[in-house]
Amino acid sequence: MKKPTSVPTMKDVAREAGVALGTVSKVVNGLPVGESYRIKVENAIKKLDYQVNHYAQGLKANKTYTIALLIPNTVEPFFAALVQHINQLLLQRNYRMLLCTTDSDSSQEQKYATMAQQNKVDGIIGLTYNPNLSIEENTPFVSIDRSMGPHIPCVACDNFAGGQMAAEKLYDLGCRNVAFLRIGSSLTNEPNKRKAGFENGCLNRKLSYEMKILDDGDSLSFFDQFLSEHITNGKLSFDGIFCVTDRIAYHVIKFLKRMQIRVPEDVQIIGFDGIRILGNSDYICSTIVQPIPEIAQMCIELLLQENLPAKPPLVCLPVSYAAGGTTKDCP
Amino acid sequence: MKKPTSVPTMKDVAREAGVALGTVSKVVNGLPVGESYRIKVENAIKKLDYQVNHYAQGLKANKTYTIALLIPNTVEPFFAALVQHINQLLLQRNYRMLLCTTDSDSSQEQKYATMAQQNKVDGIIGLTYNPNLSIEENTPFVSIDRSMGPHIPCVACDNFAGGQMAAEKLYDLGCRNVAFLRIGSSLTNEPNKRKAGFENGCLNRKLSYEMKILDDGDSLSFFDQFLSEHITNGKLSFDGIFCVTDRIAYHVIKFLKRMQIRVPEDVQIIGFDGIRILGNSDYICSTIVQPIPEIAQMCIELLLQENLPAKPPLVCLPVSYAAGGTTKDCP
Repeated sequence: MKKPTSVPTMKDVAREAGVALGTVSKVVNGLPVGESYRIKVENAIKKLDYQVNHYAQGLKANKTYTIALLIPNTVEPFFAALVQHINQLLLQRNYRMLLCTTDSDSSQEQKYATMAQQNKVDGIIGLTYNPNLSIEENTPFVSIDRSMGPHIPCVACDNFAGGQMAAEKLYDLGCRNVAFLRIGSSLTNEPNKRKAGFENGCLNRKLSYEMKILDDGDSLSFFDQFLSEHITNGKLSFDGIFCVTDRIAYHVIKFLKRMQIRVPEDVQIIGFDGIRILGNSDYICSTIVQPIPEIAQMCIELLLQENLPAKPPLVCLPVSYAAGGTTKDCP
Repeated sequence: MKKPTSVPTMKDVAREAGVALGTVSKVVNGLPVGESYRIKVENAIKKLDYQVNHYAQGLKANKTYTIALLIPNTVEPFFAALVQHINQLLLQRNYRMLLCTTDSDSSQEQKYATMAQQNKVDGIIGLTYNPNLSIEENTPFVSIDRSMGPHIPCVACDNFAGGQMAAEKLYDLGCRNVAFLRIGSSLTNEPNKRKAGFENGCLNRKLSYEMKILDDGDSLSFFDQFLSEHITNGKLSFDGIFCVTDRIAYHVIKFLKRMQIRVPEDVQIIGFDGIRILGNSDYICSTIVQPIPEIAQMCIELLLQENLPAKPPLVCLPVSYAAGGTTKDCP
């Protein structure tokens, strides 16, 4: 299938422009040349449809204009949206993006980390819960949701503020006895702060709460069991539930429907993430929305060092609340 | 952020293995050498953790071990799942995948096509409705859902069979007067065949049907209007609806709920695509499921010419039916 190449070379451009080969090279590599030369070369490039050979250029300039994105998968809506936004922002900057989904083979991550150490990609944006992944200190790496060490910037939404917002919102909507359903990761990470934020919000509002915490990997049916124990004569003792993810909220809403407990009339529910059905339709539930476009933007600014003098170790971006049909503030 | 490289070179491997530099080069490039030499080199590569420089290798062997995927976005669940499966299969083969989402800038597609023509990527898998995209005949390109010409393989699900299956299934579930809701693309493409398949299925079962066809870009609310015109005294005259996508089905189900028409008791609904909430949870509706893992696999086999002597112009892969709560066959 390979085609014999008859594409224009840098020499052809030099001939067309009537300038020296070195002048073309300077223009292509963004080095300063006289304005009239630059215009001649650019016109010749346009006329011949000359394409810069990025592989040759990469070898020379030690720059590949390629960023790798490590992400567990693209099927979970939160990840899918991150991939979309990061991809768009890179393409706008004439960067290419290598995608590496890591759910089924986490050993891939180390390969890409090594590529970045060897300048085979210009940098990595990674969302990883792989405890064995080792990133050398000076590897150009920006992490999402989990700190990889003090010298590697981590970008996340403000999970603490989001947890607090959920508690205060439930109180303000009339809830007085709420449940907090959470699956915790054993790894230190930013989303774990939703718990502390929620507790703080409850404290602020003097809102009483009960917590049910599962371990990563536990079946969601343990939440059903917990809620069942709080149902007496068909009535749930909680009037509000904060679920640490929209996925848990979706599960709980289905369970309560089976138990004929009405949402939001009998119990109001708030999730976290801001997931929409079909990617861009209705919210799954009332939810704390992660600022995905802003997370993507910040990752790229940090990695490419745009507008930023130094690399902060942790950047937390503001969340917002969206009514999604499982609270009493919905039309 | 760039680190001074002190990584092992091919020379270091040759020294460690006690062989000539040319022998290392042969092993790295997959050329035949004596078994004992190959083992020596491989052991040295392992010991030194030597990484092949794919950029240098790409220049030499005219092979980049990189495939580009062009896809409108990663947010629509069907696209998200395709990206996931294609990515996994490429990584398993030690290929890297460049992702290019094209919704917001379709001019990107031509750039990647040019890269493939110039052997800067080994090939492209593309799902595109860009009528201006021109792919040269001998570019390594595999298309999804839309034929780009007789010399470029196109992979799709069997859309005709899926449409027929929907009609026959509605009949077999008791429907006798059905509606077909469709948004048609002006571009010739494989999903357009769902219509002909559905009509054929209705003919087979002697099932009467009415069609409402919108143009690409029309508001889904025209379907609401069409259905309203078929409601008399709160009763819908159709007992079955085939929606040409799950997205349309989702919209229609919400509309019928507002009109207090019960699904599936009053009207049964079948969609197309097999979309699941949260990527891997419940189906949106009863649906004709696209075989996404098989589509991904076939694209890669065709592009890398695995197990296939020739490139067929069109490959249609079997669909299946899944009950998803909007038909009477659900538990």
